[in-house]
Amino acid sequence: MYGWKKVYRNILVVGILLAFNTGLSQASPITIEAQGSFTVGGSYKQHEGTWVQENFISEAGQRAYGDFAYVEYQKPINAKKLPLIFQHGGAQSKRTWESGPDGREGFNTMFLRAGYSVYLVDQPRSGEANLSTEAVTPDTPWASNPMYGDKTLYVLSRIGHYDENGNPVPNAQFPDGETNYQAFQQSWTIGSGPLDNDLNADVLTKLFQQQKDGAVLVSHSMGGTIGWRAAIRTDKVKAIIAYEPGGTPFLFPQTEMPRINEARFKALSASAVGVPMDDFLKLTKIPIILYYGDYIKMGSENVGEDKWGTEYAMAQQFVETINRHGGDAMLVHLPDIGIK
Amino acid sequence: MYGWKKVYRNILVVGILLAFNTGLSQASPITIEAQGSFTVGGSYKQHEGTWVQENFISEAGQRAYGDFAYVEYQKPINAKKLPLIFQHGGAQSKRTWESGPDGREGFNTMFLRAGYSVYLVDQPRSGEANLSTEAVTPDTPWASNPMYGDKTLYVLSRIGHYDENGNPVPNAQFPDGETNYQAFQQSWTIGSGPLDNDLNADVLTKLFQQQKDGAVLVSHSMGGTIGWRAAIRTDKVKAIIAYEPGGTPFLFPQTEMPRINEARFKALSASAVGVPMDDFLKLTKIPIILYYGDYIKMGSENVGEDKWGTEYAMAQQFVETINRHGGDAMLVHLPDIGIK
Repeated sequence: MYGWKKVYRNILVVGILLAFNTGLSQASPITIEAQGSFTVGGSYKQHEGTWVQENFISEAGQRAYGDFAYVEYQKPINAKKLPLIFQHGGAQSKRTWESGPDGREGFNTMFLRAGYSVYLVDQPRSGEANLSTEAVTPDTPWASNPMYGDKTLYVLSRIGHYDENGNPVPNAQFPDGETNYQAFQQSWTIGSGPLDNDLNADVLTKLFQQQKDGAVLVSHSMGGTIGWRAAIRTDKVKAIIAYEPGGTPFLFPQTEMPRINEARFKALSASAVGVPMDDFLKLTKIPIILYYGDYIKMGSENVGEDKWGTEYAMAQQFVETINRHGGDAMLVHLPDIGIK
Repeated sequence: MYGWKKVYRNILVVGILLAFNTGLSQASPITIEAQGSFTVGGSYKQHEGTWVQENFISEAGQRAYGDFAYVEYQKPINAKKLPLIFQHGGAQSKRTWESGPDGREGFNTMFLRAGYSVYLVDQPRSGEANLSTEAVTPDTPWASNPMYGDKTLYVLSRIGHYDENGNPVPNAQFPDGETNYQAFQQSWTIGSGPLDNDLNADVLTKLFQQQKDGAVLVSHSMGGTIGWRAAIRTDKVKAIIAYEPGGTPFLFPQTEMPRINEARFKALSASAVGVPMDDFLKLTKIPIILYYGDYIKMGSENVGEDKWGTEYAMAQQFVETINRHGGDAMLVHLPDIGIK
């Protein structure tokens, strides 16, 4: 197990170095052994009746296919043994890991340069995997269309704040200006069906099971709970790097449920679900690292800061519970190491 | 103008050679100078009212962003002067140009190997550009969810036929088996808003205008009409390679409208719209080539064969009209040159 510590610290170092040196790294070409895309998982529903040419557009006798993931991959020459599999967050797509809103190189290309095979996932019912066997429901807020939510998404993502006139306060990390603001707003993806964390984890698990030696999972936000669930389903998840996990339940042993901190806007509170101890213990067998950024403050009047304050407090309990059972989890609050 | 003939014939030859030699070409690595993704175009709608933290999820004072294209690009080292821009067809996404359902290398990678910069587009309201400023309407049949339509999509696409028991008849060109059948069904994308050919053409035009020397358009199916419209909007479209254009109107001079052949299932008939002669003449300034495959037969009881019979007849009139006005259009029926 401890060999893995080295692996993920190397990944962290590579990530940080690349993030601060993209100007340099972008200058050199990349050599790719193979690239392509495919789907994983999926099912269908059968409609009753008999299909006939004379009424070819009727649902009778036809199937509705859906619930698969779309995966785009690139493999560099002399690839490292373990690929990186990237799982995006809620209402998003694999674009999370691609070029930044101002054209900066994305994580996919950075890690390809660093020698990793890279798999980018559009989870079921999102992006280019946008077929569902279940109709979208009213409790999927990002499925409203048109989706009036630019400010909601901005503050829940803690990109920054708005001033008294409703304009975004300039922020040092997110690129300024209307063009970049619009690029951020264009990065969301309407889901075509209800969010189903177990479906998403089942399909992600299938992708891991296709990897001979397993792979390292990189997750974002709502992808956190999908990742914990996948690591319980298969031992092919060899490590987890989770960026700001939250938005859906953390997993805890049923017998050791955490303290819930309520957000001022109660529905935004971090949550937890209990799993059998044997399942939870699988999370102690792999290295796990969680990163959180700035604008996190429980009790803040800014809903994004407050919500993520509760997620961070939950993450602390999650890490502590894993390590108490002999695991190897680490929580990094970027402002604490000088990154704001 | 005639220099272009050479360009597109070269592209044709490269495409056909690569299609028959993928085993060989897949063996060699590809060197990439740059890759990434970005969005083009887009707009927003403003909702009345004032946004406040206390009611942060309300639509009041918020904007709905949408109607942009998502573009993924790769540039090889020593790229040829003109990039290829790929526009997909109806209810599809950029996946059209990626790996085949059985894992064969996609057009994007083939042409990258051949030295072309490649831009893959998800048109507005599709795939990873799945945000719309207009709500989806009932007249967008592929937006139903779940979408019972596996047989409709199969026969309209002329992948093949069904036997008396409702099973697909084996076909030499499409890979056999349940896995590949499912991969085909998983390749569709539900639109999140009404189909708007002019919106799609406006956004595609913006992408062409970003190309210093222009680019060559490769379109599929319903992308045909988007491509003709883009070529009228900008002189940056330097040539068009259209695979099976149809499904939406062909363009003709208002004063020279074509004969409409009605399909047995009337709503499937090929259609045409008139444009001012000055606009139409722009289509005579660039080389245009149209390809059609097999299973095309006007009057057939198979709706796919019949529908595409009317499209092919329309395409013949389109090509003839362009050439009559001094243009350089060519129609290739693959069975006529021995490809079935």
